[in-house]
Amino acid sequence: MTPDTLNTPRGGEMVESDFLKQLAAVIRAEDSYGQWDGKTDADIMAEFIVTKEERREIPIIGDPDPDVMWRVSKFYDAIGLMIEKRTGCMASQMQKMSHEGFGRVVLIAGKLVVVSKHLRDIHRFGFESWEKLAEGGEKLIASAAETIDAHPAAARG
Amino acid sequence: MTPDTLNTPRGGEMVESDFLKQLAAVIRAEDSYGQWDGKTDADIMAEFIVTKEERREIPIIGDPDPDVMWRVSKFYDAIGLMIEKRTGCMASQMQKMSHEGFGRVVLIAGKLVVVSKHLRDIHRFGFESWEKLAEGGEKLIASAAETIDAHPAAARG
Repeated sequence: MTPDTLNTPRGGEMVESDFLKQLAAVIRAEDSYGQWDGKTDADIMAEFIVTKEERREIPIIGDPDPDVMWRVSKFYDAIGLMIEKRTGCMASQMQKMSHEGFGRVVLIAGKLVVVSKHLRDIHRFGFESWEKLAEGGEKLIASAAETIDAHPAAARG
Repeated sequence: MTPDTLNTPRGGEMVESDFLKQLAAVIRAEDSYGQWDGKTDADIMAEFIVTKEERREIPIIGDPDPDVMWRVSKFYDAIGLMIEKRTGCMASQMQKMSHEGFGRVVLIAGKLVVVSKHLRDIHRFGFESWEKLAEGGEKLIASAAETIDAHPAAARG
C-alpha cells in the first residue's frame, strides 16, 4: 500500500457525471422529511461502492438483503430516467429475481427492451469506485439509446 | 335456470384448441410422478375456470394466493410456447406484481415485448368458460405474432 492509496477516500475521487447526479436525485426523492439534506451525494450513495476487499467479505448464501434489492432498483430507475432525458422514450423497469441472488432486470420503452441485464451474486451488487459506477451507468444509457435508434418504431409502439 | 344450463358442465363444453392443449401440457410437465395420468385435461385445468358466481365470491383483499400466481405463470408460459411454435421466436416471461393484486406480465422475444398485459384483481384470475379461456389465449398469441411480423429485427435482436 502506497501513501497514495492510504489518502484516497473509499471509492476514489468523486467524478463529474450526469448519471451519478441522477442516481443521487432518485435516492433523495425518497427522503420525504429532508433528513439527508445535510449529506453529500457521496454520503447517500456510499452503499453503491463495494471495494474488492468488501466484496470478498459479503457472503452469497441465502436471499439477497432487501437493501441490496432496493439499490438495484434505484440504479435501474436512474438509468431509465437518463434514457428518457436523452431519447424522449420513457423506460420502465421489470425484474425477475430468484431466491439465490440470480436475476434479470429489463427496461422497456414502448415494445422495446432497451436494457436487459442478467445479474448474478446480487448480494454483492456495487461498484469499486465512483468512476466505475458512473461508467457502468453511462454505458447502459448509451447502449439503450443505440437500441432505440436501431428500432425507433418498436420503441414508440 | 333452464334444464339446459343445469346439464351444462362447469365452464361449458370443452373446445378443441391448440392453446388449451399446450396449457394442459405445461401443467402436466410439473407432474413428475404421473399422479395426474388418469385425469382429463379438463380436470387438471379446472381452476382456470372461474364462473361469474364464483368470481363474486372471491375476496380481492390481501395478497393473491400463491396458487393464483402459479396459474398466471402457467397461462403465460403456455402463451410463450405457442408463440415459439408459430413464429420460431422464443418468448420469455417477466412479471411485476404488487401486493394488492395489481401487476404486469410481459413476454419478451429478443429485444421485443410481444405480450404486455396489465393485470388487476389477480385474485380472480380465470375465465368463465373453456371457450373464453381458449379465445383469450389465441388472441394473445395472434397479437404477439403480428407484433413480431411488424418488428422482425427487434424480435431477433
